[in-house]
Amino acid sequence: MSTQQSAPEPGPQSVKGPRINKGLVIVNTGNGKGKTTAAMGVLFRAWGRDMKVTMLQFIKHTTANFGEQRAAQKIGVTVRAMGDGFTWRSQDLEQSADLARALWEDAKEIIATGGYDVVILDEFTYPMHYGWIPVEDVVEVLRNRPDMLHVIITGRHAPEGLVEFADLVTEMNVVKHPYHSGIKAQPGIEF
Amino acid sequence: MSTQQSAPEPGPQSVKGPRINKGLVIVNTGNGKGKTTAAMGVLFRAWGRDMKVTMLQFIKHTTANFGEQRAAQKIGVTVRAMGDGFTWRSQDLEQSADLARALWEDAKEIIATGGYDVVILDEFTYPMHYGWIPVEDVVEVLRNRPDMLHVIITGRHAPEGLVEFADLVTEMNVVKHPYHSGIKAQPGIEF
Repeated sequence: MSTQQSAPEPGPQSVKGPRINKGLVIVNTGNGKGKTTAAMGVLFRAWGRDMKVTMLQFIKHTTANFGEQRAAQKIGVTVRAMGDGFTWRSQDLEQSADLARALWEDAKEIIATGGYDVVILDEFTYPMHYGWIPVEDVVEVLRNRPDMLHVIITGRHAPEGLVEFADLVTEMNVVKHPYHSGIKAQPGIEF
Repeated sequence: MSTQQSAPEPGPQSVKGPRINKGLVIVNTGNGKGKTTAAMGVLFRAWGRDMKVTMLQFIKHTTANFGEQRAAQKIGVTVRAMGDGFTWRSQDLEQSADLARALWEDAKEIIATGGYDVVILDEFTYPMHYGWIPVEDVVEVLRNRPDMLHVIITGRHAPEGLVEFADLVTEMNVVKHPYHSGIKAQPGIEF
């Protein structure tokens, strides 16, 4: 038999003692794959429990029709992509900033007025990282959200103020990536 | 403007040049949250593209009815939990080993005979880590699988032989965990 460290984690049923029931602020960050994907997994799992979920995508283009948009549509969950698909190659960052700020206005309303159990702000770290949206404003909105609302934020470079405020922060790191071997991104798997 | 490193990754549409189209072997490992969750996200995303997906769970108890089982059932995807929910507290590891070996026999058939686009072997690293199933056998089965079949393996302590063979390996690491603040695992989010 192995040591305690190498055994599977005890399941949720084994958590003992008085523990608080509350909405979590979850951050998936790091340079690896799986940040958005894990958020999609939570969306799907929560939907499995008949919770009300939605995802706002800050970078992906409004015309995006990747696996996640298609899957969400099939189960009647709203996934709204409101970005312009900008990357470091983009020229017009003012437009990207404006789009991000507009979607943040909507996000604030969605968070404050409730009605959802889980709100995912996909790739929302970037607008904070670039200074388009102040981290302090985000933390303030999160602090005043309905008690039981879970908010998941994904993207590289999670700002320190957000990490400090969050309940659960996971870093996804690349150990090995198929791009390095000339294998292209596979539909259904990576997008 | 920021540096190249801190900008969002270019989307899949920006991958240039001749690249191989093939099924991937993906490993989600590390001590953090998100290993199974990201696999669920891929399951959901692939299903969104009308791909055929299934998940075999090596540790979770056959009676498990967490969010992932419920969600999968709602969309008609088979998620089969065949473990006995063992943890480092378990007494009868022979039973756990037998169950894992039996499910691996089924997995081999599912992988070899095709019919699926994505097969997820959840918490499958543990039976390898404990020596119940030889890593070499697993790599051999993966090597001989149908060309376009994606296989995703999750769990801590991914064995070296598996990591070497895999195309995409991500390590999920804990930066901050709510258990440490006395907040209990939340349904729909963590299970």
